[in-house]
Amino acid sequence: MTVPIVDITHREDFSAAHRLHCDSLSAEENLALYGPCNTLHGHNYGVEVTLRGPVDPVTGMVINLVDLMRVMREEIFDACDHKFLNEDVPWLVGLVPTAEVLAIAFWDRVAARRSDLGDSEMTRVRVIESRNNFVDYHGPS
Amino acid sequence: MTVPIVDITHREDFSAAHRLHCDSLSAEENLALYGPCNTLHGHNYGVEVTLRGPVDPVTGMVINLVDLMRVMREEIFDACDHKFLNEDVPWLVGLVPTAEVLAIAFWDRVAARRSDLGDSEMTRVRVIESRNNFVDYHGPS
Amino acid sequence: MTVPIVDITHREDFSAAHRLHCDSLSAEENLALYGPCNTLHGHNYGVEVTLRGPVDPVTGMVINLVDLMRVMREEIFDACDHKFLNEDVPWLVGLVPTAEVLAIAFWDRVAARRSDLGDSEMTRVRVIESRNNFVDYHGPS
Amino acid sequence: MTVPIVDITHREDFSAAHRLHCDSLSAEENLALYGPCNTLHGHNYGVEVTLRGPVDPVTGMVINLVDLMRVMREEIFDACDHKFLNEDVPWLVGLVPTAEVLAIAFWDRVAARRSDLGDSEMTRVRVIESRNNFVDYHGPS
Amino acid sequence: MTVPIVDITHREDFSAAHRLHCDSLSAEENLALYGPCNTLHGHNYGVEVTLRGPVDPVTGMVINLVDLMRVMREEIFDACDHKFLNEDVPWLVGLVPTAEVLAIAFWDRVAARRSDLGDSEMTRVRVIESRNNFVDYHGPS
Amino acid sequence: MTVPIVDITHREDFSAAHRLHCDSLSAEENLALYGPCNTLHGHNYGVEVTLRGPVDPVTGMVINLVDLMRVMREEIFDACDHKFLNEDVPWLVGLVPTAEVLAIAFWDRVAARRSDLGDSEMTRVRVIESRNNFVDYHGPS
Repeated sequence: MTVPIVDITHREDFSAAHRLHCDSLSAEENLALYGPCNTLHGHNYGVEVTLRGPVDPVTGMVINLVDLMRVMREEIFDACDHKFLNEDVPWLVGLVPTAEVLAIAFWDRVAARRSDLGDSEMTRVRVIESRNNFVDYHGPS
Repeated sequence: MTVPIVDITHREDFSAAHRLHCDSLSAEENLALYGPCNTLHGHNYGVEVTLRGPVDPVTGMVINLVDLMRVMREEIFDACDHKFLNEDVPWLVGLVPTAEVLAIAFWDRVAARRSDLGDSEMTRVRVIESRNNFVDYHGPS
Repeated sequence: MTVPIVDITHREDFSAAHRLHCDSLSAEENLALYGPCNTLHGHNYGVEVTLRGPVDPVTGMVINLVDLMRVMREEIFDACDHKFLNEDVPWLVGLVPTAEVLAIAFWDRVAARRSDLGDSEMTRVRVIESRNNFVDYHGPS
Repeated sequence: MTVPIVDITHREDFSAAHRLHCDSLSAEENLALYGPCNTLHGHNYGVEVTLRGPVDPVTGMVINLVDLMRVMREEIFDACDHKFLNEDVPWLVGLVPTAEVLAIAFWDRVAARRSDLGDSEMTRVRVIESRNNFVDYHGPS
Repeated sequence: MTVPIVDITHREDFSAAHRLHCDSLSAEENLALYGPCNTLHGHNYGVEVTLRGPVDPVTGMVINLVDLMRVMREEIFDACDHKFLNEDVPWLVGLVPTAEVLAIAFWDRVAARRSDLGDSEMTRVRVIESRNNFVDYHGPS
Repeated sequence: MTVPIVDITHREDFSAAHRLHCDSLSAEENLALYGPCNTLHGHNYGVEVTLRGPVDPVTGMVINLVDLMRVMREEIFDACDHKFLNEDVPWLVGLVPTAEVLAIAFWDRVAARRSDLGDSEMTRVRVIESRNNFVDYHGPS
């Protein structure tokens, strides 16, 4: 009999400022491209990370949720909460901090902590920017 | 290095009346089939459309969210908000407006605007009918 | 020592169609007054009823929540769920079923069942029409 | 032309107590493994079951939602609501009631009622343990 | 018989950056006082405005919700959405944009449009800064 | 000119088990009185504490939210999260832990820390037991 595979998801929330602005474009191009998002503003972000793995037959867990929570807090929350994403987060500097770019960056941050996350594989990072908009990244193909 | 692929989702809400009733069935059959949904009633509907595509290395975006928002408002919100779905929406007349049928119809409406949505492909339409019920359509197979 | 006074609130949800239309006005006046709400549409309604009363020192309860739930289901849910409020609910016929009017009507329905609700007094009926709009009625002054 | 395939999801909520404790481990090992979850506590659980199937061209439905609702209430809600999952639910006794284990058990309970669920196949059971944590099970592979 | 009095509430959402910093204090004092909020960050804000008034016996309304919506969009949303509250909103410049200060400022903005809001009186402005924090202002005493 | 008075509310969430059972009643009476709540079960509780006070003209705050958060975590979260309320929380032992009784107990816990909460007065404790049920306590009269 095969061991069941389950996805486990944890969410963390943080509040940050950002501005969509691309240095290689002119002010006019930036405004045309990003519209109101070109102006400095901010969000309450939600971030969900999903890990997939076999359910340990003894513990009943894919992974200890405490471990995922700690990794997410250290890699995402501590770096981004109450920050200006364009300038205060070293690994975002020089990027345009769209939700898409954040999802990829968060994936990479958590992936670098793989050794703390047992046998599971990461299958999704969701970044929720507002109650009507979110993105999902499923990792490099 | 491959360009990352991300899913981006936008949600719009509208309020509408509907009634589940199939003209090819008798009144008794309709009542037996649809139960209380056979009576005229209504919902606050949520509609999510998900587009998948490569993240533009310059803009950091799969698509300009403003474009998706505009398409959804023109094709879905303007047609359905504060309407009686069975009678007021030309492209729903003659259909039984279940959440399943709405999801397929909304997919077709947005797909017809593909030229406004860049290189992305649509991967999901979710119709949320109430806080306990929703459907997902992933397109024709 | 005085007995503590606590407010207890229960929520029920129902889905219904309605139309804002006043028979004493012309079609043009109705449209000008109610705008898109003049057209048949619908909502997922949330209704909260709040009762205030002393906390029974033995049971720790203001009222048995089961009693409030039963009254709300019998008086509100059973009458309104999956209905067309303008025509299917006898005690709403002839009224314009705005959220304001519903709140007052629901208050009266629950108040008529006072004998089933112990020593508490009703202090508020909230009708939530959508995620951005709700009304509160605190009873006749 | 192929018949469209749609996923339909229904959610039920229940409130239960549980404790993560593995009989084959010592008290110290249990505490180290489960941390605060080793202590008796509880949750408002949300359970979503998703069925996938062709949309009936006559009825516009994958399945009658009433059938899914009834199966979920009989198999999940009636068994688990206002219960101590470790002791009161016969088919959970001897298991560690993590969200992962619950998702698998709920899958099996609903799958055993397949004959009540038409031609659809179950594709997902989601167990929402709190507003920041949930798991998904997609069935035996 | 008296005319029933009802409270009607509308909510608008906007996304903005802010920073809690008081010019009359030193950098150290600001940091000690505001902690992480002293750094530039942002939120998805929700704003609720509540109007109280008699229910018009003909229309069934306290006020036309469209009027309240328009006032809130013009006075709050248009001024604050996708803005840096400390610098981009003229009537906030020089203030510390805490939720408390925003609630008072929004009250004043809406109150100045009283002539567009019929016979109702404003009774509450709620500013929701995150899912765990909000403030209510009931007007000058 | 008078200083504006604002209410500020913070929410904390915890997960706990409880059972409604009154030692002075027989098993039959308990079952008749509390129904399914007489059985051991649990909830994800939300607790909101509201403080009212003048907005400091310099800081723009009624109180430093960090102080309220710390008091709520120390007095409520640390004591109740992942606990069995009937037995594990010393100041609840011997009480029937209904939402009403919890609200009163939480009020008393926070009130005892008044010296940490500046000039504000506490005006409300809300205990949210599930998505359809909550209670409010406004303090001893």
